[in-house]
Amino acid sequence: MKNTAILLVSCPDQKGLVAAIADFLYRHNANILHADQHQDGALKLFLMRVEWDLGDFHLPLGEFERHFAPIAERFQMDWRLALSGYRPKMAVFVSRYDHCLADLLYRHQSGELHCDIPLIVSNHTDTKWLADAYGIPFQHVTVHRDAKEEAERLQLDLLRHHHVDFIVLARYMQVLSPQFIHHYPSRIINIHHSFLPAFHGAKPYHRAFERGVKLIGATSHYVTEILDDGPIIEQDVARISHRDHLDDLIQKGADLEKIVLSRAVRWHIENRVLLYANKTVVFD
Amino acid sequence: MKNTAILLVSCPDQKGLVAAIADFLYRHNANILHADQHQDGALKLFLMRVEWDLGDFHLPLGEFERHFAPIAERFQMDWRLALSGYRPKMAVFVSRYDHCLADLLYRHQSGELHCDIPLIVSNHTDTKWLADAYGIPFQHVTVHRDAKEEAERLQLDLLRHHHVDFIVLARYMQVLSPQFIHHYPSRIINIHHSFLPAFHGAKPYHRAFERGVKLIGATSHYVTEILDDGPIIEQDVARISHRDHLDDLIQKGADLEKIVLSRAVRWHIENRVLLYANKTVVFD
Amino acid sequence: MKNTAILLVSCPDQKGLVAAIADFLYRHNANILHADQHQDGALKLFLMRVEWDLGDFHLPLGEFERHFAPIAERFQMDWRLALSGYRPKMAVFVSRYDHCLADLLYRHQSGELHCDIPLIVSNHTDTKWLADAYGIPFQHVTVHRDAKEEAERLQLDLLRHHHVDFIVLARYMQVLSPQFIHHYPSRIINIHHSFLPAFHGAKPYHRAFERGVKLIGATSHYVTEILDDGPIIEQDVARISHRDHLDDLIQKGADLEKIVLSRAVRWHIENRVLLYANKTVVFD
Amino acid sequence: MKNTAILLVSCPDQKGLVAAIADFLYRHNANILHADQHQDGALKLFLMRVEWDLGDFHLPLGEFERHFAPIAERFQMDWRLALSGYRPKMAVFVSRYDHCLADLLYRHQSGELHCDIPLIVSNHTDTKWLADAYGIPFQHVTVHRDAKEEAERLQLDLLRHHHVDFIVLARYMQVLSPQFIHHYPSRIINIHHSFLPAFHGAKPYHRAFERGVKLIGATSHYVTEILDDGPIIEQDVARISHRDHLDDLIQKGADLEKIVLSRAVRWHIENRVLLYANKTVVFD
Repeated sequence: MKNTAILLVSCPDQKGLVAAIADFLYRHNANILHADQHQDGALKLFLMRVEWDLGDFHLPLGEFERHFAPIAERFQMDWRLALSGYRPKMAVFVSRYDHCLADLLYRHQSGELHCDIPLIVSNHTDTKWLADAYGIPFQHVTVHRDAKEEAERLQLDLLRHHHVDFIVLARYMQVLSPQFIHHYPSRIINIHHSFLPAFHGAKPYHRAFERGVKLIGATSHYVTEILDDGPIIEQDVARISHRDHLDDLIQKGADLEKIVLSRAVRWHIENRVLLYANKTVVFD
Repeated sequence: MKNTAILLVSCPDQKGLVAAIADFLYRHNANILHADQHQDGALKLFLMRVEWDLGDFHLPLGEFERHFAPIAERFQMDWRLALSGYRPKMAVFVSRYDHCLADLLYRHQSGELHCDIPLIVSNHTDTKWLADAYGIPFQHVTVHRDAKEEAERLQLDLLRHHHVDFIVLARYMQVLSPQFIHHYPSRIINIHHSFLPAFHGAKPYHRAFERGVKLIGATSHYVTEILDDGPIIEQDVARISHRDHLDDLIQKGADLEKIVLSRAVRWHIENRVLLYANKTVVFD
Repeated sequence: MKNTAILLVSCPDQKGLVAAIADFLYRHNANILHADQHQDGALKLFLMRVEWDLGDFHLPLGEFERHFAPIAERFQMDWRLALSGYRPKMAVFVSRYDHCLADLLYRHQSGELHCDIPLIVSNHTDTKWLADAYGIPFQHVTVHRDAKEEAERLQLDLLRHHHVDFIVLARYMQVLSPQFIHHYPSRIINIHHSFLPAFHGAKPYHRAFERGVKLIGATSHYVTEILDDGPIIEQDVARISHRDHLDDLIQKGADLEKIVLSRAVRWHIENRVLLYANKTVVFD
Repeated sequence: MKNTAILLVSCPDQKGLVAAIADFLYRHNANILHADQHQDGALKLFLMRVEWDLGDFHLPLGEFERHFAPIAERFQMDWRLALSGYRPKMAVFVSRYDHCLADLLYRHQSGELHCDIPLIVSNHTDTKWLADAYGIPFQHVTVHRDAKEEAERLQLDLLRHHHVDFIVLARYMQVLSPQFIHHYPSRIINIHHSFLPAFHGAKPYHRAFERGVKLIGATSHYVTEILDDGPIIEQDVARISHRDHLDDLIQKGADLEKIVLSRAVRWHIENRVLLYANKTVVFD
């Protein structure tokens, strides 16, 4: 089991930044395992992810903030410390299509996803058997067209009760309200079944089929108030041809969706995703 | 050198179609090399491409139509006979970016594209050196903002004079008028530097960069009156990351554009592309 | 539910072949849904797959052979008739890695794989929980190094008892004997975790890592007596970089293996795979 | 035009490394544009590439070595300073296939490859027209089977005379002797027309066709004494099917070869490739 700390930094690009961070870590005897940085020349922005082994690290984590504060202040850093030992709590929202849920549950069970899943929330009961097979609590929350607010209130209660850190929409077919989204900013991951921004909105496979595209796609992104417009975490495509009917698109797309969503979820859990300007930097 | 005939058929799907065509060819001693067909169940449409060696074929090509007419009538066929021995005349339109032109000229020269290139038309002179290097006539036709019609008239004169069969827009940065397009229906091939329908219109790389996509694309399609909306012949994508600046997108995209356009042009030349419902069937 | 017949033909390439088959089907009022053919010019071989709806078909299937025999004889055909309504019986062999098994079981359960799974055979018990979750009988057959023959005898008994049509080796880590393989010629599908023929044999990820390749692969193939040398059904690759440790290769590879194996299994079930010259033709 | 310095470091992994380098650069007022590092945990190796703008840099480059020496010594660094302003001299060796040469010449001419090409060497004259079109000196050096040594001596004279920094084998069909290779260690880049290590040696497309693979590949690598065994810089693949004849493989492969080789050459020129353990790290 890894026992590492991960420092995520975002700030105006300035000389001496890397030197200051590297020197700080060195003085406290950090054994750096990975360090990645990115400069956005146009926005004059600096982003960094550095991960080190906690084995030899001299500084107690409880005192990290106090010691790091002067550097953070000097460079006007937006920063965050994450620990690989902490397993974040992930809730999965799902409707009827179960391929993404089945994939996430298998990856969780096999140890690929270092998180806990305190609950699955669904507006249908079709996927309960999967939750049961993997031993994950399943909550059926019906969403009536004219009582969405009430349903969301109930969902939020469940999320709070289970101390959920982030939410994965595994083909959840309800649009969440801005109020709901505000509770989990940059912490709701969706899978959209198209190569965004193409075919945003409803029925993307139908529209891809009609348009006669030669590749279909899937996009995983953070949910923002504007539908299908949040920062993209991962995308991929698969080749199709005239031999593929709409059903084939849906089936080939399902394999894409699973892979793309699971990559995004893993990167989120491993604190590899940084956000800026409605985009992501993924330090892989 | 191949000496084959290619029959392209499109008609309502009916029983006995394949039997009738296969029997007709057999009776005239055709040695079939390739046969591909496609049924669109929803539209009840049948599409076929069959290619045979002319070596043993008994029927003189001048009499093909007369002999095939009864079958064509019976099944209400839209059909066309093409000969591999005929080298279609391709005009290339280009502006300043020369990567697609350079690629087409090299493939033509190396024998990959079985066509003649009687002329290159450009609204700039930047690419003249390439035309000269490959020995292809170059026509500079300036396009003034307020004299587009005149420019198009001149272009059409040139095309007619050279008996051009089809036009390739190799990053030609002018929008053609519907009047112009009507002269070459389904015979103008464009390369658009995005994964259509995403980022149709101007500056697709800039917009892809801003949106933070993880893949960039290129699309080759037939030109119709509606901008970037014609039947797609081929598409492909390349992976990018946050490390790629806008310049990198443009450079990686250039490699995509070349490959995608050259595939589309080759398939068009080889009579592999059939059209229906604003889509293509590519019999590869 | 589809109710179709599929005719698979392999024979020396000759004139009149397509006409004879198409005419035969037409005379019996077949409504052809798909027809694909392939000619191998070098080997002068003709391969065909034609699928038609049985709704209007006049010929009782029990009499198909008698009526088709004259054509088959005339063209020296190797042929087979398959029915989409028949669900073949698939046995899955697995050792400890369970990702391929989990994937197959999910696809079976979701209706993507039109087959029955009468049993899972394993030389370990690690995957029993998955078999139980999906309600599939699980047989633990230990394979002692010095009692392989006995184990295979037991396996063959089980396969016969359950009328198994074909076997999928879903990361089964034992080499099967030629005697065993002879009982299921071209009916054992394996997944090898490399891009064959690179890294055939043991520990392909380790060797790929050592060699410093930039892509890893997976290959699904029919099992023959020569290890990892049978006809390839499907292959795919994924990009890796120096940032990927051996563990990352194994994890990224697992996703490849699942996808590649499931495609091969589906094509086999749908009678899309034809064999010749230690190769496959996949009519997709 | 970029005016940057690039420091490439390889040394045993130790604490304080990044801090020491970052501090050194900061003290001399470097404006870091990119920094990438890689740790190989198993080999306990540290690799770094850092690029900074020379605009504000206080340290005259002529004194860099003297000032950096103490740090280099302390950490037992293998290091190198490269300047983006220096255009390395690249010689291209080619035989009869000209697609890679044409591609490199176009990319050079268009400004994508920041290098000079003082000469093209060929054992045939087929590609002279291309050299002429792009205005690059062409040297015809015949290689007789029993006078290879003599030919190589002549080639080496030419390379020395033109102060060549590195050599690109753009489908050069002669095997170079170890003696020759010793003169340009890790400075000869080859393109092999297969997905190495599959199909190393002669006629890879023929063998790929015979084996019935579903993807073909191309590999660019540094040349070492062992044929097709040097450190891989880049690889890519393309999908093929039974519809592709050997000719199609060769043609599709040509597009792969061009792209893969040009990427490798560009990365080499931009000092992005580091070597260790017969592998490459490509800092892209």
